[in-house]
Amino acid sequence: MLGLSPQELLQELKPVFYPRSIAIIGASPKSQNAGSGWVFGLVASGFSGGIYPVNPRGGEMFGLKVYPSLASIPAPVDYVIVSIPREAVPGLLDECIAKKIRAIHFFTAGYSELGDTTSNKMENELMQKARRGDFHIIGPNCIGNFCTESKIPLSPMAFMSEIGTVSFISQSGGMGAKLAESGIARGLKFNKGINFGNGIDLDGIDFLRYMGADPKTSIIGAYFEGARNGRQLLNTMREVSKVKPIVVLKGGRTEVGAAAAKSHTGSLASPVAIWSAAVKQSGVIEVRTIEELTDTLLIFQQLGSWLGKNIAIAGGLADGGGGISVTAGDICSEVGLTIPQLSSQTKEKLTKLLGLVGSILHNPVDVSQAGSSPPILEEAFSIILADPTIDMLIVQEDMGILLRQLDKGSVETVNNSLVKLKDTYNKPVVIVLPPGLNEPERLQTEHKLAQDSIPIFPTMERAARAILRLSRYSQFRATLRN
Amino acid sequence: MLGLSPQELLQELKPVFYPRSIAIIGASPKSQNAGSGWVFGLVASGFSGGIYPVNPRGGEMFGLKVYPSLASIPAPVDYVIVSIPREAVPGLLDECIAKKIRAIHFFTAGYSELGDTTSNKMENELMQKARRGDFHIIGPNCIGNFCTESKIPLSPMAFMSEIGTVSFISQSGGMGAKLAESGIARGLKFNKGINFGNGIDLDGIDFLRYMGADPKTSIIGAYFEGARNGRQLLNTMREVSKVKPIVVLKGGRTEVGAAAAKSHTGSLASPVAIWSAAVKQSGVIEVRTIEELTDTLLIFQQLGSWLGKNIAIAGGLADGGGGISVTAGDICSEVGLTIPQLSSQTKEKLTKLLGLVGSILHNPVDVSQAGSSPPILEEAFSIILADPTIDMLIVQEDMGILLRQLDKGSVETVNNSLVKLKDTYNKPVVIVLPPGLNEPERLQTEHKLAQDSIPIFPTMERAARAILRLSRYSQFRATLRN
Repeated sequence: MLGLSPQELLQELKPVFYPRSIAIIGASPKSQNAGSGWVFGLVASGFSGGIYPVNPRGGEMFGLKVYPSLASIPAPVDYVIVSIPREAVPGLLDECIAKKIRAIHFFTAGYSELGDTTSNKMENELMQKARRGDFHIIGPNCIGNFCTESKIPLSPMAFMSEIGTVSFISQSGGMGAKLAESGIARGLKFNKGINFGNGIDLDGIDFLRYMGADPKTSIIGAYFEGARNGRQLLNTMREVSKVKPIVVLKGGRTEVGAAAAKSHTGSLASPVAIWSAAVKQSGVIEVRTIEELTDTLLIFQQLGSWLGKNIAIAGGLADGGGGISVTAGDICSEVGLTIPQLSSQTKEKLTKLLGLVGSILHNPVDVSQAGSSPPILEEAFSIILADPTIDMLIVQEDMGILLRQLDKGSVETVNNSLVKLKDTYNKPVVIVLPPGLNEPERLQTEHKLAQDSIPIFPTMERAARAILRLSRYSQFRATLRN
Repeated sequence: MLGLSPQELLQELKPVFYPRSIAIIGASPKSQNAGSGWVFGLVASGFSGGIYPVNPRGGEMFGLKVYPSLASIPAPVDYVIVSIPREAVPGLLDECIAKKIRAIHFFTAGYSELGDTTSNKMENELMQKARRGDFHIIGPNCIGNFCTESKIPLSPMAFMSEIGTVSFISQSGGMGAKLAESGIARGLKFNKGINFGNGIDLDGIDFLRYMGADPKTSIIGAYFEGARNGRQLLNTMREVSKVKPIVVLKGGRTEVGAAAAKSHTGSLASPVAIWSAAVKQSGVIEVRTIEELTDTLLIFQQLGSWLGKNIAIAGGLADGGGGISVTAGDICSEVGLTIPQLSSQTKEKLTKLLGLVGSILHNPVDVSQAGSSPPILEEAFSIILADPTIDMLIVQEDMGILLRQLDKGSVETVNNSLVKLKDTYNKPVVIVLPPGLNEPERLQTEHKLAQDSIPIFPTMERAARAILRLSRYSQFRATLRN
């Protein structure tokens, strides 16, 4: 696939993300197996192309006819999901060739990830057939495609999000599903996703080039364990990161992780030192955990880019902002953010508004002397954002504390004013909203603010690290332009 | 207070945590001010001693008579909460002396934390009076005491938990409240808490010695910004950590944080290098964020101590455990935990139970081939815990994934079997239960498991760091005993 131009690649992999029809081999009307999950998910998500469950026993499921074989489907099929035991796979491949299938996705596992001779041999045979036939293979040992535009849900668990600009590539189905599940909960809007498992034909490099070229994708998340051609993967990441942010979680960084990766996707994990060194010289954004991956994708989705430097922090919206301010200052400084003094004019205005007693008028700003009054809080935020030296405002809100001083409506008023002010001053507002005693209200607030393009983080540290990554990549891109 | 023996100190500070009666100066029947919050909280929590709101205008609130002055209260008063402007304080002190008050807690702020001459002078006068009179001062600029045994809630926000063994000392009211709020949500059971603000009389050293001597306290959490006598505080922490775990969050570690601390509690933050070096040679457990503080208190509460070494990790309870296993292995290794190979006997048993295809039978163990069957999962956990080389099991559960494969009852069954197995094998089970698409069910599960002494963490990394701290302190104590 490396010979193809970006436009040719988009065309070549169109059947993976925009298939006209999908057949699900191994769907069973009688049991809740993975194949059935896919059929259900496609129907429930509203996939508009043909959906063809295939099972020799025939029957009907979710209002659809079950076909006894691929050959019996009375229409062309672009994409096939295979969820049958590995022993039945070789026969199926001939049927796929006859049916002119464009892409075959093997949920079926039991190949090189097991490491034994038989399994390796079976995978080799699969690869040989793929090279002869006119189709691509996704997997084996994977959950395949995801496309919100096409209404193709992710995995038999049928995850679906609003149509967005975040796409991901995951060597692991579980990590892909986890990213979708936890990301959707936090307001991530995906465009596409792909899990390629053992990647014997289409692999991380192909999909990375595809996502890089895809006009619908603005931000790329990736989980890799290893690659047949590690150096090529690194080069591709570095190339694509010149046009779009790529946030990469590398699995198998340690001896323990690498051993697990070996038996998971059959990957020989690349030595972490080489990997990190290569990544460091590029714009590629490396993360260490699934939470960091989600945090980073979220801040890119919500803010795009940020070329500012100076950050103000406000806390104590419902009293008691002293220690919160001290620790927020410590954490953000230690992570590497710049928390400057406010201008003397800003300090004067805040003193006039909030008084001196009990308040901290440094930065971080303890706004507790606002007495939890929404209009005074709004004015305080406005004064801070109006300071020309300030490029971003982080607000720490503790819902379980806020609701002991304010009613729900007033908390909404305060948050609505933050949404308004970020637009008025054209400076990003980031909110730290940790879990606590009022989860229903907190989650509702998080969902609402996420829709208003505010990135929300559960801890100050995670917010700070995400901001740093956004800032560094934005600087990297700005340097390229000069 | 340094001259007192532990027993004398317990007696001396008894009126702070076990007062026979409490007067609240500045409670207003007509407005929801802080004083009123305390009166409400004491009534609502069921404080069994006398509760005396004091306000010159008299009246009634929450069914209680409001007294026009301290002198007019027809019974002895041990503890006074002062919530009036600082200008009215000097007159009040003479009334307190006349009434033989044992401890006065100043919520009132506006002293040395402001840094100006007038404020410093006013604080000095307060201190002089305290030295002459027969009472102790808590504060000023603080939210004072908290005691679940006495049913004294924390702060005007009236936080209350079940009676437990965790006590805390916080120089910041906001951090104390945040610790209580977020800790209670995660199942922390407190015994006592104290916030001493500027600490002009009773300070961190006194309360640390008290908590160290207190038979009801097993674990101590602390938030400090600075101390008049930093070396003495360090020495006290080191002494107390020989008998109980002390988990300390130090505010003002950075220039930005230290500047905030100066105007918050008037503390000159101790240079962080001296602090960390001194702490490092002791059993004192240093943390950097409120989340780490809560995580660490929680694991000590739930597990007490842990002298094991080898940890097994299981993931993929509802399929897709490959990448989860790889990343869990990476994270735990990087944090410094030992994730050894399972014995060959254990591997054999797991292979027999789970089959080979699609599973990872290293450690971390991907149990996804159990097909989400609760009895098979229980057997897998049992086989792992029975391995004599394994001292602890971490289980990663993603509720938003689990509930797509299992019904709620089956998830409960799986968790109940973990509760049973940890007792059967007398090995701790730690559960990682990240937030996602099924928050109501996740929170319910967290509450249930917390009651069963299982520590729950939202991320693998936070679990790993908490386990490491528990392990190191347990080793430290074991070394002392030898």
